[in-house]
Amino acid sequence: MRERIATRALAGGARVPSIRAMSEQMGVSKSTVVEAYERLVAEGALAARRGSGFFVAGHGGAALARGLSGMHGTPAPKLDREIDPLWLTRQSLETDSRALRPGCGWLPAAWLPQDAVRRALRAIARDPRAQLTDYATPLGLPALRHQLAWRLGQHGIEAAPEQIVLTDGGSQALDILCRFLLEPGDTVVVDDPCYFNFQALLRVHRVQVVSVPYTPTGPDLAAFERVLKEHRPRLYVTNSAIHNPTGATLAPAIAHRLLKLAEEHDLLIVEDDIFADFETDPAPRLAAFDGLARVVAIGSFSKTMTAAARCGYIAARADWVEPLVDLKLSVSFGNGELAADLVQRLLVDGTYRRYLDGLRAQLADAMGETLRRLASAGLTAWTRPQAGMLLWAQLPDGLDAAQVAREALADGVVLAPGNVFSVARNAAGFLRFNASQCNRPKVYETLQRAMERAATPA
Amino acid sequence: MRERIATRALAGGARVPSIRAMSEQMGVSKSTVVEAYERLVAEGALAARRGSGFFVAGHGGAALARGLSGMHGTPAPKLDREIDPLWLTRQSLETDSRALRPGCGWLPAAWLPQDAVRRALRAIARDPRAQLTDYATPLGLPALRHQLAWRLGQHGIEAAPEQIVLTDGGSQALDILCRFLLEPGDTVVVDDPCYFNFQALLRVHRVQVVSVPYTPTGPDLAAFERVLKEHRPRLYVTNSAIHNPTGATLAPAIAHRLLKLAEEHDLLIVEDDIFADFETDPAPRLAAFDGLARVVAIGSFSKTMTAAARCGYIAARADWVEPLVDLKLSVSFGNGELAADLVQRLLVDGTYRRYLDGLRAQLADAMGETLRRLASAGLTAWTRPQAGMLLWAQLPDGLDAAQVAREALADGVVLAPGNVFSVARNAAGFLRFNASQCNRPKVYETLQRAMERAATPA
Repeated sequence: MRERIATRALAGGARVPSIRAMSEQMGVSKSTVVEAYERLVAEGALAARRGSGFFVAGHGGAALARGLSGMHGTPAPKLDREIDPLWLTRQSLETDSRALRPGCGWLPAAWLPQDAVRRALRAIARDPRAQLTDYATPLGLPALRHQLAWRLGQHGIEAAPEQIVLTDGGSQALDILCRFLLEPGDTVVVDDPCYFNFQALLRVHRVQVVSVPYTPTGPDLAAFERVLKEHRPRLYVTNSAIHNPTGATLAPAIAHRLLKLAEEHDLLIVEDDIFADFETDPAPRLAAFDGLARVVAIGSFSKTMTAAARCGYIAARADWVEPLVDLKLSVSFGNGELAADLVQRLLVDGTYRRYLDGLRAQLADAMGETLRRLASAGLTAWTRPQAGMLLWAQLPDGLDAAQVAREALADGVVLAPGNVFSVARNAAGFLRFNASQCNRPKVYETLQRAMERAATPA
Repeated sequence: MRERIATRALAGGARVPSIRAMSEQMGVSKSTVVEAYERLVAEGALAARRGSGFFVAGHGGAALARGLSGMHGTPAPKLDREIDPLWLTRQSLETDSRALRPGCGWLPAAWLPQDAVRRALRAIARDPRAQLTDYATPLGLPALRHQLAWRLGQHGIEAAPEQIVLTDGGSQALDILCRFLLEPGDTVVVDDPCYFNFQALLRVHRVQVVSVPYTPTGPDLAAFERVLKEHRPRLYVTNSAIHNPTGATLAPAIAHRLLKLAEEHDLLIVEDDIFADFETDPAPRLAAFDGLARVVAIGSFSKTMTAAARCGYIAARADWVEPLVDLKLSVSFGNGELAADLVQRLLVDGTYRRYLDGLRAQLADAMGETLRRLASAGLTAWTRPQAGMLLWAQLPDGLDAAQVAREALADGVVLAPGNVFSVARNAAGFLRFNASQCNRPKVYETLQRAMERAATPA
């Protein structure tokens, strides 16, 4: 019927056979016909008129039926966009499932706890007390905030459940904090290199972004102090535990001195702990040293559990909670409770803890293997990450990562060129890799070929 | 065990009986003990050490166990906050389930399609092709965007699926549009009265908000033209179909003249169609008249399907889609795909259409009954809404709605006083009611008593 509507063999307004007639004609049950008609109504190919049956939809129906038959294609990766932070976002999210993404910032679906998510969805569906339709309370699901208070406590961050505000992911958490802490024209410090989307997000807030070189043990403190004196920034945004993109870990002494500098210069800090659960050896948290005075901790479960149900959080000093919640409600009317419930159930039933144990071992193997293969390809690791999926590697002298990425994209491989992560744009010779996305020989074959092509000017 | 940890009968660091020992001691299966221990680990009361069993958690564990036993309380409604748009948001979201909310803007859970949501969750959980863990593609789930294109077409709004951007709800849709269309200091027009959260959201964007009186057939055009000339606003934000809070419907001739004024004064319009599916007689859409040139349509399923899985959309002119998507990704890294999948499944299987037929009839009955009972209580309806749940009613002369609301709140009834919806603050004698939340006699008893108390100064 869809075909006949699309080709206009059935014209707009035409009445289609009754459910009974169609059921007899096709030799299927009436309920099958009802379901098929319902689908066509939902797709817009048919219209139902109460008491008088089903009709071919007028305006738009045919176009829609045509559209639906070809709707499963995905747009091809675009080559003509400037290679900037949003380029990497789009390439990572847009590209079709056949493309390889050795530079992207998340785990392959097969590495994520899909069966546990399925089980939790079934548990929600059958729980008579599950809250399936209402708005969330202002701070978000109390049971999950209690869990998070406990988990933060494990990292030495003392936050009562009433200091924790749930959000629809880590990006939204940072966005709300920027709205609270920043005025247009303020200056914000980030690491160089840093998570590429910090730059895109901060640009939306109309602030000045300056950067400080990151070392394998944290930011370069001499450079940090110069930036504080010269630019008087209001806020520093960084990762704790495992740094993105380098995989580096902050040393306790650097954390201490950084916080002293922050106090002297009245700098606030947002510490994004999104990779907390990948950690094997506990790294210091700025929020733990500081006691949530000038540091705010944020995080999410998008990297270790699911990014299809977004759930993140802000842990902040008590007197900031009310204004943060007001902001959250003003711009979103609250976080999605279904996602919070899903995360809460996975945390409580023990599945997640066992899954993480396995994941860390799997990632450690993949990291070793990726480091070895990148070295064979002529790349040099900037540091050996203690844990996690990310690593930062330097191309042989003279090769431009953006050019290598362009060449690889033509072969269906999305690389992550260094300057996308660098505000100072001094990482042209680097690429970010994700060990969990690097197990296919095609990654290294394409990388080699792209490096050769980039080395030979056309 | 939780009790013993909370009272410190089991001290931090103490080893708890092995799974086998506990299983024998309690006469339950080992798997029951494993599950109980896992829960206590997840709650933070126990810690697991690989290979050496379970221990009482140190720091924080006892406090947590205590916290958990008292965690189901909800904070009492706060009386001391200024009665402004965020007051109503907080009162509506925060108050406990025993409170009545005759002024709130959504349906009671029992009126929403909870069984259909359960079925859709089960269907997702068992669908091997369901996307359970990945980030969404930049625009959002293609199948849902096709559905929305069709549904908008039913209202005469021609939008290709590629012109539709999914969001995590209607508020996020408006927030992204404000970021795209407005600069700090710009002026925005709203209706007087208007949806109260428009004011809170616009304040976050640091814009000037001016208002134009709303009539039962749309905005007062003479006043609109004066505002255009005097304030040169950039944007007008309004509801289509069924106006919030009045329940009024835009007349076609007003829509036409409004668009002419918008063109003459280069005004952009965001038309929030969140109540589309309540409509019984099709009202004109500004976006349909205008062809998405200077009008953007937004909407969501939070009012008719579920607010626990937030899913909204923007339908905009083709050349605005790329920058809007860049903004969405910068601040959120994409919408939650699980919510989009849930909405899509409910739309496709016909449940939603049948549910809406029943809901409209139920609302029409409730509206008639509420109008009758409010009239008995001495209130006057501003207009008789053609459909939907909202109505706007005037108190007898001299009564202040904020005062009546304060009195009612003391009795556990959350009213919605008029000035919360009025930028000009000229609706002190009005209240918004929601017919679906007004079926309990206590609503009218409390209202009567609150009116009497408000009429008698203390």
